[in-house]
Amino acid sequence: MKEQLFTVLKEKEPKMIEIRRYLHENPELSFKEEKTSTYIADFYKNKDVQVETNIGGYGVKVTIDSGKPGKTLAIRADFDALPIHEETNLPFASKVDGVMHACGHDAHNAYMLVLAESLIDMKEQLTGKIIVIHQPAEEQPPGGAIAMIKDGVLDGVDNVFGIHVMSTMETGNVYYREGPIQTGRAYFKVIIRGKGGHGSSPHMANDSIVAGAHFVTALQTVVSRRLNPFDVGSITIGSFDGKGSFNVIKDSIEIEGDVRAMTEEVRTIIEREVRTLLEGLAGMFGITYELNYVNDYPVLVNDVHLTDFVANSLKEAGIEGVAEIVRCEPQPPSEDFAYYAVERPSTFFYVGAKPENGPGYPHHHPKFDVSENSLLIAAKSMGAIVLDYLDKYQV
Amino acid sequence: MKEQLFTVLKEKEPKMIEIRRYLHENPELSFKEEKTSTYIADFYKNKDVQVETNIGGYGVKVTIDSGKPGKTLAIRADFDALPIHEETNLPFASKVDGVMHACGHDAHNAYMLVLAESLIDMKEQLTGKIIVIHQPAEEQPPGGAIAMIKDGVLDGVDNVFGIHVMSTMETGNVYYREGPIQTGRAYFKVIIRGKGGHGSSPHMANDSIVAGAHFVTALQTVVSRRLNPFDVGSITIGSFDGKGSFNVIKDSIEIEGDVRAMTEEVRTIIEREVRTLLEGLAGMFGITYELNYVNDYPVLVNDVHLTDFVANSLKEAGIEGVAEIVRCEPQPPSEDFAYYAVERPSTFFYVGAKPENGPGYPHHHPKFDVSENSLLIAAKSMGAIVLDYLDKYQV
Amino acid sequence: MKEQLFTVLKEKEPKMIEIRRYLHENPELSFKEEKTSTYIADFYKNKDVQVETNIGGYGVKVTIDSGKPGKTLAIRADFDALPIHEETNLPFASKVDGVMHACGHDAHNAYMLVLAESLIDMKEQLTGKIIVIHQPAEEQPPGGAIAMIKDGVLDGVDNVFGIHVMSTMETGNVYYREGPIQTGRAYFKVIIRGKGGHGSSPHMANDSIVAGAHFVTALQTVVSRRLNPFDVGSITIGSFDGKGSFNVIKDSIEIEGDVRAMTEEVRTIIEREVRTLLEGLAGMFGITYELNYVNDYPVLVNDVHLTDFVANSLKEAGIEGVAEIVRCEPQPPSEDFAYYAVERPSTFFYVGAKPENGPGYPHHHPKFDVSENSLLIAAKSMGAIVLDYLDKYQV
Amino acid sequence: MKEQLFTVLKEKEPKMIEIRRYLHENPELSFKEEKTSTYIADFYKNKDVQVETNIGGYGVKVTIDSGKPGKTLAIRADFDALPIHEETNLPFASKVDGVMHACGHDAHNAYMLVLAESLIDMKEQLTGKIIVIHQPAEEQPPGGAIAMIKDGVLDGVDNVFGIHVMSTMETGNVYYREGPIQTGRAYFKVIIRGKGGHGSSPHMANDSIVAGAHFVTALQTVVSRRLNPFDVGSITIGSFDGKGSFNVIKDSIEIEGDVRAMTEEVRTIIEREVRTLLEGLAGMFGITYELNYVNDYPVLVNDVHLTDFVANSLKEAGIEGVAEIVRCEPQPPSEDFAYYAVERPSTFFYVGAKPENGPGYPHHHPKFDVSENSLLIAAKSMGAIVLDYLDKYQV
Repeated sequence: MKEQLFTVLKEKEPKMIEIRRYLHENPELSFKEEKTSTYIADFYKNKDVQVETNIGGYGVKVTIDSGKPGKTLAIRADFDALPIHEETNLPFASKVDGVMHACGHDAHNAYMLVLAESLIDMKEQLTGKIIVIHQPAEEQPPGGAIAMIKDGVLDGVDNVFGIHVMSTMETGNVYYREGPIQTGRAYFKVIIRGKGGHGSSPHMANDSIVAGAHFVTALQTVVSRRLNPFDVGSITIGSFDGKGSFNVIKDSIEIEGDVRAMTEEVRTIIEREVRTLLEGLAGMFGITYELNYVNDYPVLVNDVHLTDFVANSLKEAGIEGVAEIVRCEPQPPSEDFAYYAVERPSTFFYVGAKPENGPGYPHHHPKFDVSENSLLIAAKSMGAIVLDYLDKYQV
Repeated sequence: MKEQLFTVLKEKEPKMIEIRRYLHENPELSFKEEKTSTYIADFYKNKDVQVETNIGGYGVKVTIDSGKPGKTLAIRADFDALPIHEETNLPFASKVDGVMHACGHDAHNAYMLVLAESLIDMKEQLTGKIIVIHQPAEEQPPGGAIAMIKDGVLDGVDNVFGIHVMSTMETGNVYYREGPIQTGRAYFKVIIRGKGGHGSSPHMANDSIVAGAHFVTALQTVVSRRLNPFDVGSITIGSFDGKGSFNVIKDSIEIEGDVRAMTEEVRTIIEREVRTLLEGLAGMFGITYELNYVNDYPVLVNDVHLTDFVANSLKEAGIEGVAEIVRCEPQPPSEDFAYYAVERPSTFFYVGAKPENGPGYPHHHPKFDVSENSLLIAAKSMGAIVLDYLDKYQV
Repeated sequence: MKEQLFTVLKEKEPKMIEIRRYLHENPELSFKEEKTSTYIADFYKNKDVQVETNIGGYGVKVTIDSGKPGKTLAIRADFDALPIHEETNLPFASKVDGVMHACGHDAHNAYMLVLAESLIDMKEQLTGKIIVIHQPAEEQPPGGAIAMIKDGVLDGVDNVFGIHVMSTMETGNVYYREGPIQTGRAYFKVIIRGKGGHGSSPHMANDSIVAGAHFVTALQTVVSRRLNPFDVGSITIGSFDGKGSFNVIKDSIEIEGDVRAMTEEVRTIIEREVRTLLEGLAGMFGITYELNYVNDYPVLVNDVHLTDFVANSLKEAGIEGVAEIVRCEPQPPSEDFAYYAVERPSTFFYVGAKPENGPGYPHHHPKFDVSENSLLIAAKSMGAIVLDYLDKYQV
Repeated sequence: MKEQLFTVLKEKEPKMIEIRRYLHENPELSFKEEKTSTYIADFYKNKDVQVETNIGGYGVKVTIDSGKPGKTLAIRADFDALPIHEETNLPFASKVDGVMHACGHDAHNAYMLVLAESLIDMKEQLTGKIIVIHQPAEEQPPGGAIAMIKDGVLDGVDNVFGIHVMSTMETGNVYYREGPIQTGRAYFKVIIRGKGGHGSSPHMANDSIVAGAHFVTALQTVVSRRLNPFDVGSITIGSFDGKGSFNVIKDSIEIEGDVRAMTEEVRTIIEREVRTLLEGLAGMFGITYELNYVNDYPVLVNDVHLTDFVANSLKEAGIEGVAEIVRCEPQPPSEDFAYYAVERPSTFFYVGAKPENGPGYPHHHPKFDVSENSLLIAAKSMGAIVLDYLDKYQV
């Protein structure tokens, strides 16, 4: 059955590429993917399948029901683009000024639509159910996953699989790792309010820039002294907005920060310490503050047992064009697939997609591109583990 | 002769008020005082006096020559306004949106024009020469004084007097102090360049905000450890422009600072230490920087001997409406009259101008106003010391 | 009468020198001046004067009562030495190892005893009373003055005079200044307690050295941002005791600081800010602290009216050997004469005592010395103003 | 053969305990283990084995040569004690005041001597050679390993095994991990020299405490901004020796630090950054410094292939009393076994030794103790892998 699927997918490779190029030309920003959503839903028209739209915003849920008992497996592809001006010079480059599929989500849906179509055609041979999750808004917290979950996309689902194509990993390899694989994240904004005044009379004012500078220096101790050196965590102040007139003491400043962690415990410690530092700072410098601290995407944790199953399944599948199944290192970025993994044992894995002739620009780069060979590999890889899973996965 | 002058000035008080109100309604920003300059020059038309325009920009130099030997004394009035939106509700409030005489320079020229006119009329009774300096651009470094000096306004001049009306000092008092009376100043802007990067990978970047925060904290040691506690100096970082995206490590920031000092030595120490700190910071954090450091207005130092003369002259003048001649404390702001005082022994003094019914809003405040009673006091005070000076000042 | 006194004093100059050398050879530390106190009291034996000992410790109070109505004037000389090992090689150098009259207090009592003796002899010609205060323990807070005051030494006293000989000022000049002339002071010790631990596991500990370092850096902002730049204040952390084992996180450290101010208001601001910073620090870093903050010697403020009187009196006295009566700058050190000045309008002034051949080592230096010519000048200066004061001082 | 060895070891368990207790009673500090070294060498007297003493100090090298071709395997036990005052109340507690076997090195040699004796007796059945390394001075850098290596203890050796008993791990389990398992370390001491002076005149001095405080705060950025968050590194300032007099500006201070890292690259980055910061600090604050920076124990890296072999060998051995062979997390402390692992592919593993009734005090604690059941487990575990290794290990 796997071979049958591989043959069908191979035949449909041009279709995947066509879809990918269409999506690439027509990118839409997170939470604004109206046309993409319609395009996806339209794809399923006249197919023997249940399609639900407007799930958690522009999300599309497709249910492939074999009619026979068995597991229910969800497979997810995200479809939003980024506010980046494309510089690839590809013939199918973005037609939308300042918006670009610079993270490969076009590829995700290209392979997924064709794979879903193929699985629909094989429905009679399957058991259980497959839920295809076409998800919007991965790039922008709070993200689309959490809203689709709220709208019930995981109801009845046992497990979830997801793939990311990776422009920095070798095309021809598939990569996996069990346990924590992508960082959890938090965002915070703090307004520090002192009291304005004339530069020549500091004693009449309360200098918010000086307080803010001490906050930034003290903040370094959270990573250096509060975290276990064996744990992973980072805090970046990406914005220190204290623009003012050179000879006027600034009454308030605005600081924005980005937090990363590889365990929820570390994420919790960092939040606690940022709050503690600010409360102390207020006492120290007599300032007041307003803090907006939001934990958004959780640490993405692959289920160990399920990921072992996936890795073995991929190794045994002997997919043509796949050189190696590689256990890789955890990845710094955050990913809202993590919300599915919080709810159900899940596995998220990587398909190498480094362009054959090119340096492999990183994700979110204006020259980002993926090898289109990765589409078929993604389709076959996901197809293989779906079939194996429905056939024989046991907890 | 003093009494004669006082009588004339008293008669002309309505004219002073009229001029002041006209100027107040028609403010012009520093270096853009074209109409004000013309208005002043026109005032002298058909008067027996030499008028030179476009001295150091829009400056006007008026020479009242007695034709007899004697000292040459310069008396100065500055005439620029500020980029402030007036909120006084005065019937003669500014007609120019966003521009306001919020520092009393309108009053300076109002009393000065009428005083000059009166002195011209008494020319035959005088000895020596009086140079009236109508100066533009006091509010904005590099200021108008330095340009007028460059254009020769002090050529042949022995000494210089100047007055500032003060909304925060009691109307009816005149204030003086010998020695250093207003701070010298410097301005600096520094661009700190690190290397941008993604918030989750600080080791690939070089965080300019963190380096900038350490600069601000270390900078505090200049005042706290490098200056003699008995000296006066301050450094304010009025602008810390590090606005960016919360999860991107900022590649460069821009910091602007304001320096005040009451001696040239302190001003020199502060410049040296700011330069030293930045050079060290560059080594410490591997950043590069561009520093633009400008010493502008010097410390304003009143000549001790001349100021004693002025104080005694004022005390002896017994001016009606003047309650007290007060030795006051030095003042924090800077003043480009300091350039005249660097070139010639000079005295700058203050005429109380707190409005009779009102709180005395500080200079540069949108509700700033002065008591118009101060105009006559200023005219008489300056008149008295001019006459005494020409009559009997000896070094 | 003044001339008569001057003549007597001139005759007794060798006696002053003898006493000074004796005291110099036999220095005693603050609060331990038992023999010096006895020596002083013994000096007055068989003299027609009332001597009270053990006033506020080893203090000696001598009352020269003319029997006639008039003012009561106190004149003060302090007599303790310092824990310094003398390196002068003087023939009359200290015989006590590690103890030295390195601040000229030997000179103070040498001139004072001889002056007192001379005034006793002239008692019949005087009016009012003279209280001679021989004070112990000036060098060591809480100081001897406060204890003598508590024991009533100022009861009935109208005003107080004091002299300090100055090795850094020209011999032959006498120096004065009205208003604040020497700094007030505070001392503080703070123990910062975190939690110890192993260097490789900072998250299990709470690093007191890191918290202490942030305290020191933040403390700089008190002088740089909380004080009026026109005011005088300083804070020095003289001791940061965090010695430990390199690979053990330190559980607690001890910091000691010295505070100087030229007004009580500044001293109050600094105390408030140190307390505020520590309270904030505790919140910021989760440490606890114990603070011992002691304001000791107040700002020494010379009464303006009395000091004018003193300066004029000195100028008019035409003392042989005195070149100039100089208005000097305020002095950084603190002085417990300030306690008298808090209680009564007082004047403290300086007698130049730079050695004729030598560099004028600063006070508290192991090679400190004074010109012995200063003894007669001090005696005549104090004598002159005592006589003038009793004769004609009016508030 | 393995079963035969296990039986012999079981019989000799009382001997192991006896030796352990003897060594425990007679601890010697690092580099001073003269008696322990002699005791060990004496143990081998009259045994058919080559013993070399004074290898790299008090090290003892024992060669068990089967006379047949094969691998040469070294097995290592360290034997120094710590400067800690024992508080265990054990009947065999330390007889040496202030010195204690508080890290289990007594147990290491107890099991090792008995194991070696047993292997000597089985020599005829073996192939290749076994080198028993009895190593002094593990606790004190530069450590004994580096000296023994210099003296040739690894000449001809193919691989090295070592064991640490762990009071904090469950007795009955054996723990292993491939790759980096214990941190590398560095030590540094820096003297910062400013210029002393009086607390009231900071401008005449250069405050070394303030410079030191800024060093400590800036140092936090090395871990927070210079390291990859996925890497492991820490820097602790364990000593900040700035004790002085509260009102004297401190001329110099001494800071000592401890560095940990889990890769050599991180260790290198930290050294570079510490040097960079100090060089910048010198410029920033005008101080000079003397830095002594020593990288001592390297990261301990277990060879992946060899460690797989060891883990499998242990699992297959089915040792009585061993419940589980556990893959554990890396450990924060450093260990000079790392030097062997730099020279030869090596495996260092852990034998759980938590006392049966007790809390399992951490290593280096005055109440530290180990379960004596761990001795037999250690002997059997090391014995099993030695036999397997000589029998069949292949790279």
